[in-house]
Amino acid sequence: MIKNYLIAPGPTPVPPRVLLAMAQPVIHHRTPQFSQIFADAKRALKQLFQTEQDVLILAASGTGAMEGSVTNLFSPGEEVLVINGGKFGERWTKIASSYGLQVAELKVEWGRSARVEDVRRLLDERPGIRGVFIQASETSTGALHPTEEIARITRQRDTLLIVDGITAVGVFDVPMDRWGIDVLITGSQKALMLPPGLACVALSERAWQRTKEAKLPRFYFDFARERDNLAKDTTAWTPAISLITGLRESLAIIFEEGLPRVFARHTRMAAATRAGATALNLDLVAPDAPSPALTAMFVPPKVDGGKLVSYLRDRMGVTFMGGQDQFKGKIVRIGHLGYTGTFDIVTAIAALEMALHHFGYDVVLGRGVAAAEGVLMAGMPD
Amino acid sequence: MIKNYLIAPGPTPVPPRVLLAMAQPVIHHRTPQFSQIFADAKRALKQLFQTEQDVLILAASGTGAMEGSVTNLFSPGEEVLVINGGKFGERWTKIASSYGLQVAELKVEWGRSARVEDVRRLLDERPGIRGVFIQASETSTGALHPTEEIARITRQRDTLLIVDGITAVGVFDVPMDRWGIDVLITGSQKALMLPPGLACVALSERAWQRTKEAKLPRFYFDFARERDNLAKDTTAWTPAISLITGLRESLAIIFEEGLPRVFARHTRMAAATRAGATALNLDLVAPDAPSPALTAMFVPPKVDGGKLVSYLRDRMGVTFMGGQDQFKGKIVRIGHLGYTGTFDIVTAIAALEMALHHFGYDVVLGRGVAAAEGVLMAGMPD
Repeated sequence: MIKNYLIAPGPTPVPPRVLLAMAQPVIHHRTPQFSQIFADAKRALKQLFQTEQDVLILAASGTGAMEGSVTNLFSPGEEVLVINGGKFGERWTKIASSYGLQVAELKVEWGRSARVEDVRRLLDERPGIRGVFIQASETSTGALHPTEEIARITRQRDTLLIVDGITAVGVFDVPMDRWGIDVLITGSQKALMLPPGLACVALSERAWQRTKEAKLPRFYFDFARERDNLAKDTTAWTPAISLITGLRESLAIIFEEGLPRVFARHTRMAAATRAGATALNLDLVAPDAPSPALTAMFVPPKVDGGKLVSYLRDRMGVTFMGGQDQFKGKIVRIGHLGYTGTFDIVTAIAALEMALHHFGYDVVLGRGVAAAEGVLMAGMPD
Repeated sequence: MIKNYLIAPGPTPVPPRVLLAMAQPVIHHRTPQFSQIFADAKRALKQLFQTEQDVLILAASGTGAMEGSVTNLFSPGEEVLVINGGKFGERWTKIASSYGLQVAELKVEWGRSARVEDVRRLLDERPGIRGVFIQASETSTGALHPTEEIARITRQRDTLLIVDGITAVGVFDVPMDRWGIDVLITGSQKALMLPPGLACVALSERAWQRTKEAKLPRFYFDFARERDNLAKDTTAWTPAISLITGLRESLAIIFEEGLPRVFARHTRMAAATRAGATALNLDLVAPDAPSPALTAMFVPPKVDGGKLVSYLRDRMGVTFMGGQDQFKGKIVRIGHLGYTGTFDIVTAIAALEMALHHFGYDVVLGRGVAAAEGVLMAGMPD
């Protein structure tokens, strides 16, 4: 018997209460009974997004909402800026290019954060830029981008700020309205503690205005149509009923804990993970502005990261994620968002030091765990 | 306590085995463990579609696969023919128009089937038509269209036949390769006995060729990219992991029963439902070519169909569906696809006669059930 632990930056573990909610018999979606579930989820999502705006619920993974944020807001040939500091920044470029937008890219070294002054300079140089695309937390590297500061620039111009918050919303504080974010996106399999299959997206008032002039074609991801349906507590197309039933439950769990405590827990788990990695002499991929959602660390040069991740998963039952593209085989990513607590971090660091030891890396067993424990203790009740 | 019965044309009831499979802890999708589940589902789906081609699995409801069948196969301005005999036929027109195709429509009276000679005539008159869109079973009316006969025409021309099989695949025999269907679509919440959230779509060899020249923009629903990923037992974007885990289980259930028996069961349930309705003097909406997936019947003139459906659902616990658009308040639709057996039909007809009686319609209680029983008896083991 191998007991399994999912400690990846998404999908994240689903709490038993949510698994049970989703295991209930399916009810029809065009009924007042389902609309009640939908209305509850809709209301709580607004609190999670910290917005007065509607939050649309789409049957898709996060990439679907990313595509919709391009097609519902822009017209062919328009100029946009993509902050590209990783695999998901790159995805913005691919989507925008697929739909015929002119993409200017601010390339950021993987693991680093975009510099606010570079964004300002680019927007000054190219006043035609109609939108800026960014990741609040870049899941391929574990780095944060300065969303709040960039929003201060974009909200003073006719430039929309579209934020992939897939490993940010519900992980740390991203107050959409207060910061002046125009589009904020998340997916179900991260802080929302659900299986993948739902994407959530909210638009600012001026973004909704923009949808009226946007000429790119769209149908399945038609935000205005979804908003009309949302007002009637339903969706345009058949919703992912069981996931939305789970969503109501997971949002209830989040608000029972309270957002400030949820954020503090993520911050603490992240700090403990970094302390553990550092005690093992592993270099952090994103030391300057590390995400509370995940921690990426470089594997020691003589260890094959791919083999390390496979060994952890298949022999030890601990699922982390490795690196993508230029980081393939070179990094390990540990997730600490969603349904994650103190002893998941203890397990993660223990597994990491044991696996590194197995591959011949010079590790003092227990040293990483001790460092993590030191940080985790601070969060214990008296 | 009200005990609930979902007897609608989708979503359909989910078998306990499938609910349990989906309630398992989520595993990461970029692992050999998930790829094994995916590979099993992929293999069984080919059998279900009766095709040698790959069947793509998308995180979306059926409409997403419908959109993808437009954007992956056509270029702006191309001419297509839509067979429009109901709400879902109309959807083909809306999607194709949204993406700038020239749409010729063959309008079919709701409840009737398209006539093959009309299709042939239209294709002869307009040789530029590059594709024909149809529903194998039109869920808003319960009518079948003659897919096999239309495929005989399209496969002899450079005209693709795109079939919405959402209430057809796994309900009755739609052998994709043998008939020469170019695109076949289904959704998870019908014969596949799952919650909504997955769409499945397969393309013929010549349809795959066509994707290479098709210039409409697409990204989330990029079939070629999905096929490349499918070959590696994964998906392009994060898959709906729990639904795919359920899909493997539901396909296992389907193939334990065997397709011929599944089809025969649907046919028998449909015949029993029609017999019950007829014994209650209710007119069938689609008497000529009724679908084995659902039966639609007109409500007696003095009964308000909306109130009837609400009463059945909220007071009796039996969820049917009413009519849409021109049929709103005028019809009732009973689903008998998927996880549906003899006593679901007995329940449906009993509930129907009791509710009609409640609304003052002259019903001899038990007469509808007796007629249904007569048909259902034929399927009983000796």
